[in-house]
Amino acid sequence: MNCLLLPSAAFIDSRATITAAAQLMHIREVLKAGVGETLKVGMLGGKLGTGVIETISERAVHLSDVTLTHVPPPKLDITVVLALPRPKVLRRLIMDMTALGVRDIVLVNSYRTEKSYWQSPQLARIDEFVLEGLQQGVDTVLPRIHMHKRFKPFVEDVLPDLMTRQGIVAHPYAKRSLAQYIQSTASQADLLPDVLCIGAEGGWIDYEVALLTAHGCTALHMGARILRTEAAVNALLGQWLLHQNP
Amino acid sequence: MNCLLLPSAAFIDSRATITAAAQLMHIREVLKAGVGETLKVGMLGGKLGTGVIETISERAVHLSDVTLTHVPPPKLDITVVLALPRPKVLRRLIMDMTALGVRDIVLVNSYRTEKSYWQSPQLARIDEFVLEGLQQGVDTVLPRIHMHKRFKPFVEDVLPDLMTRQGIVAHPYAKRSLAQYIQSTASQADLLPDVLCIGAEGGWIDYEVALLTAHGCTALHMGARILRTEAAVNALLGQWLLHQNP
Repeated sequence: MNCLLLPSAAFIDSRATITAAAQLMHIREVLKAGVGETLKVGMLGGKLGTGVIETISERAVHLSDVTLTHVPPPKLDITVVLALPRPKVLRRLIMDMTALGVRDIVLVNSYRTEKSYWQSPQLARIDEFVLEGLQQGVDTVLPRIHMHKRFKPFVEDVLPDLMTRQGIVAHPYAKRSLAQYIQSTASQADLLPDVLCIGAEGGWIDYEVALLTAHGCTALHMGARILRTEAAVNALLGQWLLHQNP
Repeated sequence: MNCLLLPSAAFIDSRATITAAAQLMHIREVLKAGVGETLKVGMLGGKLGTGVIETISERAVHLSDVTLTHVPPPKLDITVVLALPRPKVLRRLIMDMTALGVRDIVLVNSYRTEKSYWQSPQLARIDEFVLEGLQQGVDTVLPRIHMHKRFKPFVEDVLPDLMTRQGIVAHPYAKRSLAQYIQSTASQADLLPDVLCIGAEGGWIDYEVALLTAHGCTALHMGARILRTEAAVNALLGQWLLHQNP
């Protein structure tokens, strides 16, 4: 946690109260902060700033002299369409995409998404993972999360409206590389694709790549190396971070 | 595993034998492959290719018709200097850096590296993590792993010799951004920095950044957002992947 995010109701005048167990534990065990010390805080959906610890108890930390002056960093102008991955990796993927500033996250079914993934209790915890990502990335604005359990209707009916510029599909077996694509068409931030489709473990099957490309996406590889979904997401989004947050 | 890597001694003429438990389990439970099916294999330090399953037993899979024809992808021309992280994240970091093709990995002490990390049994398992990374990234060539338990002597005596071009230190509080730096000096692959220093959780302290910059590194940030070490490593190395594996 590089900042502690609190709901707006936690702030009254220049005071704030922290009661969430994870945040209390972070103050106690990681920051080891005591009365009089300054914490980085933020209001969910609002600004970032600091507060001074006034009292600490088992159940609450009270802050005084709270000032929220910084606007959060801008979101990346991108929608990531992610084939729903194994529940175990979902947490880190949501955290990382949120910390990196992805504006819209679409979780979609795919051939290699096992049906049980949609029943996982982890799916109900996405809000937690988002909060972790915001507190990691020092942001206050929630990304929008969308879920589509049916791939074909999503690609045919929803995807085209998400794309105002270009869409790309990450596919290790594509003929063209992202590097060539960026050099030729997207060296400027406002020309970078605004939809990025990433498969889960095992990637997209040919039918899925064909349907995505038939609806406006370009299939691109990142070289001969095949990366874990998490590594691929971060390696790809690093391009947007560099171009859009210079 | 996107390929199964075997030591050279496992190959005899056009046959090969797989006996490692993790690989046998992968064939059985993930690939669910049977006699007559073709597997992607590679020789550690050698070439990549295929083999056909001839027999399967509890203890071994025998392959026939083994042909190794593909050279592995080139390594990225980069040394990553990483502050030794928590053992829990070490595995994924080593895997990802290996899959991405980092040529040299230096694990170094830092102020925020707890002493216990150097005693972790995970450190003795680095070879396993490297093998996982090679099998993920479809490569056969081991990265070189170096360990330096003392930060100052490493930076003063070893680091300058690792740098033939430029070094950079990832530091969220640096004045200059990586985007500006790449635009101004390193748009060509052969001008990209060849040393990249990345802190563990909490990053480098000011003294460490100062010592690194005094010995030839430039401190750069990637925008206002602070990323987990794993996310930062992948987001950063994505630049090298794109520039050096076009």
